[in-house]
Amino acid sequence: MKELVFGHQNPDTDAIVAAKAYSYLQNKLGKDTEAVALGNPNEETKFVLAHFNEPAPRVISSAKAEVDAVMLVDHNEAQQSVSDLKDVTVTHVIDHHRIANFETAAPLYYHAEPVGCSSTIVYKEFESAGVEIPAKLAGLMLSAIISDTLLFKSPTTTKEDLKIGKQLAKIANVDYEKYGLEMLKAGTNLASKTEAELIEADAKSFDMAGKTVRVDQVNTVDLDDVFSREQAFRDAIENANEKNGYDLFLLMATNILDSNTRLLVVGEPQNVVEKAFNVKLVDNKIDLPGVVSRKKQVVPPLEEAFKK
Amino acid sequence: MKELVFGHQNPDTDAIVAAKAYSYLQNKLGKDTEAVALGNPNEETKFVLAHFNEPAPRVISSAKAEVDAVMLVDHNEAQQSVSDLKDVTVTHVIDHHRIANFETAAPLYYHAEPVGCSSTIVYKEFESAGVEIPAKLAGLMLSAIISDTLLFKSPTTTKEDLKIGKQLAKIANVDYEKYGLEMLKAGTNLASKTEAELIEADAKSFDMAGKTVRVDQVNTVDLDDVFSREQAFRDAIENANEKNGYDLFLLMATNILDSNTRLLVVGEPQNVVEKAFNVKLVDNKIDLPGVVSRKKQVVPPLEEAFKK
Repeated sequence: MKELVFGHQNPDTDAIVAAKAYSYLQNKLGKDTEAVALGNPNEETKFVLAHFNEPAPRVISSAKAEVDAVMLVDHNEAQQSVSDLKDVTVTHVIDHHRIANFETAAPLYYHAEPVGCSSTIVYKEFESAGVEIPAKLAGLMLSAIISDTLLFKSPTTTKEDLKIGKQLAKIANVDYEKYGLEMLKAGTNLASKTEAELIEADAKSFDMAGKTVRVDQVNTVDLDDVFSREQAFRDAIENANEKNGYDLFLLMATNILDSNTRLLVVGEPQNVVEKAFNVKLVDNKIDLPGVVSRKKQVVPPLEEAFKK
Repeated sequence: MKELVFGHQNPDTDAIVAAKAYSYLQNKLGKDTEAVALGNPNEETKFVLAHFNEPAPRVISSAKAEVDAVMLVDHNEAQQSVSDLKDVTVTHVIDHHRIANFETAAPLYYHAEPVGCSSTIVYKEFESAGVEIPAKLAGLMLSAIISDTLLFKSPTTTKEDLKIGKQLAKIANVDYEKYGLEMLKAGTNLASKTEAELIEADAKSFDMAGKTVRVDQVNTVDLDDVFSREQAFRDAIENANEKNGYDLFLLMATNILDSNTRLLVVGEPQNVVEKAFNVKLVDNKIDLPGVVSRKKQVVPPLEEAFKK
């Protein structure tokens, strides 16, 4: 019975690549799987796929019409997945996020580790299965690790991400420092997008103490470039909050060159954000030096602050 | 920072042994952990610990007063764990059950597989870490696998449980067929226990569609022996339902020699049980030939029937 393999909505490079890599592995192990995606590739991922001459995956939004069972990569929370996740059986999960809003009726295969990238865990799955990684796939997996760890600079980066990244660079025969910077810059082309597009492109929803919290991240090489459009961002976010029922929206503008984030906060409760980072908001903004990771540096303190 | 490692409430042999084994491994890897238990060993586990001359673990019911972080084995659902699970950080989970009512604020290490026993997965953790298993620990882990798979006869048994079980028998230098039957029989000594004790000894709670469903399993070599005490079991269950707010109580009496279960159902809704097994209840009872596994053969169909 065929199974679909996919990453989260608003896919980033890891969501798309980890699905391709894990599907390739499962097929080698005798399963019948297809890697798909819950959205179109972003600018960075387009650059990656073009660089390695790999087609973009087919886009779906629900699964039950096609299959009874699915494998999730790079996510587990239902609101980040296909719309009908509760109607299909999840047989495998490969992930590096917290576990929340995820429930199964039966035992399953679940391999999560607190590492920087799902593709790092997929690499370990290849290793323990004794399956070789082709050069092209290695290049794609390397790209996912570079993307998630911001070229091994994010605090989510572990020794394993670095070691496995270097391993993959060798297999793919890629100069990862040079390629990585090129790739990250390709993802920071903000001028070509509207504010409404940018606040959606890498956004994820979280349920915290009954509130719907939306966190989007925009990578840049110049924060002033982003905040010259601040009013338009505020308008777009207010619009999105109203339309989609988000209570609180955090826009992380992250400078990938010096690893700092400026946060723009729209919605309520604002004081929870102040509690989370122990800093007063000024004009709805906070500078967070050294913060680049939504998963490790923004969601957990926010989650904690909501509990208080 | 010290972490506690433990299995579920009403510990069975796997809950106690997997905690001991995983704690041993984590300590070898440089962590400071202690294996504890959420209850006293049952008759079978007492036999196992005595056989391998291993002390029973310290019993706890909450964790926060001692530690900030814990590792769970053989369970993940909060209602089966320490009473203050939400106040501590779960850093590792080794499990072979469905995932439900489990949520973390941060990424963690989670290794679950749909195999027969948590100790099978712990064995794989030893293997991938390259740490040797001492003979005594191998005997304990073998006992856990025999216990969970009813000597490799339960439908939850996988090729890996059998292969790893044989591996462990070799390390421990144990004749697993002979030892296994002795061990299982040691766990079926029902005469020495009251009905109130027996319906608690291996019971787990599940939240299904808002109802609290309690499922207990009693192993025996003679079903008539159990059902000669039927009225006393009914009284004890009604008492427990009222006292603890259980909506529905299923007592599985399982004959470990021929792998059949007779179910006694007390509480409501009874018709969901009939739907789950597609059989009419007669005098609150159903015979389920070939059914020995709560996790694989009772909880999933019940869960499905509640959704309809």
